[in-house]
Amino acid sequence: MLRTLSSELNKYFDQPVLLKGRVYNLRKMGAISFLVLQDRAGLAQVVFEKPVEVNIGAIIYIEGQAKKEERAPGGVEVRGEKLTVAADVAGEMPIDLSKKELNVGLKTLLDNRPITLRHESVKAIFKIFSTVIRVYGEAMRQRDFMEIKTPKILGAASEGGANFFQIDYFGKKAFLAQSPQFYKQITCGVFERVFEVDPVFRAEPHFTTRHVNEYISLDAEMGFIDGYDDVLAMLGQVVSAIFKEIAENHEAELKIYNAVCPKVPDKIPQIKLADIKKIIKEKYGYQIPADTDIDPKGERLAGQYAKEEYDSDFIALTHYPTNMRPFYTMPDEDNPEETKSFDLIFRGTEMVTGSQRIHQYDKLVANIKKFGLDPKDFSFYLQAFKYAMPPHGGWGMGLERIVYKLLGLKSIKEAVLFPRDVKRLTP
Amino acid sequence: MLRTLSSELNKYFDQPVLLKGRVYNLRKMGAISFLVLQDRAGLAQVVFEKPVEVNIGAIIYIEGQAKKEERAPGGVEVRGEKLTVAADVAGEMPIDLSKKELNVGLKTLLDNRPITLRHESVKAIFKIFSTVIRVYGEAMRQRDFMEIKTPKILGAASEGGANFFQIDYFGKKAFLAQSPQFYKQITCGVFERVFEVDPVFRAEPHFTTRHVNEYISLDAEMGFIDGYDDVLAMLGQVVSAIFKEIAENHEAELKIYNAVCPKVPDKIPQIKLADIKKIIKEKYGYQIPADTDIDPKGERLAGQYAKEEYDSDFIALTHYPTNMRPFYTMPDEDNPEETKSFDLIFRGTEMVTGSQRIHQYDKLVANIKKFGLDPKDFSFYLQAFKYAMPPHGGWGMGLERIVYKLLGLKSIKEAVLFPRDVKRLTP
Repeated sequence: MLRTLSSELNKYFDQPVLLKGRVYNLRKMGAISFLVLQDRAGLAQVVFEKPVEVNIGAIIYIEGQAKKEERAPGGVEVRGEKLTVAADVAGEMPIDLSKKELNVGLKTLLDNRPITLRHESVKAIFKIFSTVIRVYGEAMRQRDFMEIKTPKILGAASEGGANFFQIDYFGKKAFLAQSPQFYKQITCGVFERVFEVDPVFRAEPHFTTRHVNEYISLDAEMGFIDGYDDVLAMLGQVVSAIFKEIAENHEAELKIYNAVCPKVPDKIPQIKLADIKKIIKEKYGYQIPADTDIDPKGERLAGQYAKEEYDSDFIALTHYPTNMRPFYTMPDEDNPEETKSFDLIFRGTEMVTGSQRIHQYDKLVANIKKFGLDPKDFSFYLQAFKYAMPPHGGWGMGLERIVYKLLGLKSIKEAVLFPRDVKRLTP
Repeated sequence: MLRTLSSELNKYFDQPVLLKGRVYNLRKMGAISFLVLQDRAGLAQVVFEKPVEVNIGAIIYIEGQAKKEERAPGGVEVRGEKLTVAADVAGEMPIDLSKKELNVGLKTLLDNRPITLRHESVKAIFKIFSTVIRVYGEAMRQRDFMEIKTPKILGAASEGGANFFQIDYFGKKAFLAQSPQFYKQITCGVFERVFEVDPVFRAEPHFTTRHVNEYISLDAEMGFIDGYDDVLAMLGQVVSAIFKEIAENHEAELKIYNAVCPKVPDKIPQIKLADIKKIIKEKYGYQIPADTDIDPKGERLAGQYAKEEYDSDFIALTHYPTNMRPFYTMPDEDNPEETKSFDLIFRGTEMVTGSQRIHQYDKLVANIKKFGLDPKDFSFYLQAFKYAMPPHGGWGMGLERIVYKLLGLKSIKEAVLFPRDVKRLTP
């Protein structure tokens, strides 16, 4: 007999079915047992007209009849006839998964990841996570972007900064990639439009709810642009495609978190960083500290302003100061103190960083020196530019940030299957 | 004026077009200049009725008229009218890209990756590479597999073996993942069917044409299987989808390498490892060394046997010895010296490794001990099994191996954008 998934039961009314899954819950009411079976498609209610002895969490096979039943979830229940335990638990479950809300602290949630992942509310997070990867890839390919895979082990911590993890590479020092930046630019000089979905590694000793030390970056780089506006327009289309798909296909998952999918405006509101700082000061009475481009509170208020002024969950802050952006960022020719760069703020948190890049060899070499770096340390990167690069720009988008902000999770770590932070290396 | 791609010129006969791209080649014949422009879609021939002075490799914009021209590639050429240099080269190109074959040694090819990638024959490799990723994802999702992203930084080198790269993780020892094995199994206990497309890192001091130290692994794990046969059947469908798509959409790229796409048999021939060893001895007079399961020469001869006996480019070798497979591999109950495992050999080289896994907690703990390991070192992994896992199995498939064998490349490193080997950390 072929297996039936819980989601397909309503195609088999009054027919025999074979369910395979896990005991998600079991209640006994007198001589009747209500068993909730969980499989990859969701939950199924199974009724046995006898007391059933089976452990919560066990892997079971159930033979029975599918019956129309208005009061059951999905309008169908199974009259259980035969129950086989395929794999039993070796003790009582350390976490109670039977309640609608999981209600455990972050540490318990993550320490017991193999178990807590099984809760339907947690599964929902990663269904959406998987959809974002799919739609990102589809949207990029439809726009003629080619998928690339660039190395995560680097010979030098060449982008500068101290936040690289160091590796012992056959007795030599090597580093984990903080981003595919140099490689996506080089390949953009070849394939014009490239994208990558890969882990990046940041050795930042953060203890915040919105940082992890290993995350998935949705990267892109596009050539033959006229300016950073082209990059931002492309990004808008892709972000729009992602949220459209989530709204259409993840109604149930969104509902668990009372989450509303944002509409992405046809043109995302843009404002210069210098201008939003003034607005935040005047409108909200908050002075962004002088030693930062914008701080988390500033981003939150920028998000508030976007909502109030444009009814938008998104706002692009542009023209970050030259000394706050990496050396490869294109300066604005009208004001070289500012760059042709942007951050996309989603509901008050940075979700994407992007810019037009310097594509002229001489200008890039000069800027490397201006940043106090040595062009010799960038020889392979510079080779691409020495032999001509098209005008180009791109972005890096944090996959977990999207899911975290969309669902309103308490910590971004909830949006990572097995998160890594300063203190957490397992599971 | 909107840009026209080289591949779209034949839609614009006798109309003005704007090409953007790179000078791929330039020949002057008297007063006439033949310029080959390269863009992401391919090459376009542009004729100027005047001597054109422009450097090979420069980024240029060309305005002109598209004209039907049987003798030109694609049946179309552009009568060039105006040429603008958007970004010039700062010296003569170190590699001549103008010939149909690149003809450089592996070291030169890789040392100058930002330049050699631009050759049409090299671009072809990565177009196919990108297609494999796409089709793998599509095929898996069609079969209800969910995409996961598991950590690459591990707290312990827990699968055993010495071939882990060590990381300094905030002063603690950590390791780079050799495979997503434990994590894909744990998530398989939750989502039943999972797949991942991510880098893996192997600190093996290999100097062969078929190994790199960082590569992309196409992983999968599926639950509720009846045996390893289910895994192998699923794998066959997916591999078939990949090669079907390449055959249909990459005729031009295959032609560059005189490569023929294999047909994947509806049922891939299977043979026990012990049996193929006998056949190799009897038929080809080669004795596989006793200290290995099968060596590269043995795999080559197994491939030859598959071709001669089954007219197949694929053969699955099954039932590897228990002591040659990891501890989580399911032993065969009929003969515990053998496992329910397989390698898929493609044209004489291992392309996939897979097996049914042990899903019973007690059996797994016993096997960890039998392998001389300490169950305490596997506590988070074992938590999933303690609280019941479905019967499951999966595979790891080397993406670069597929491309390397398909195109008949001299080294697998040619199928990596920026390969890493014992001596190579740049570019």
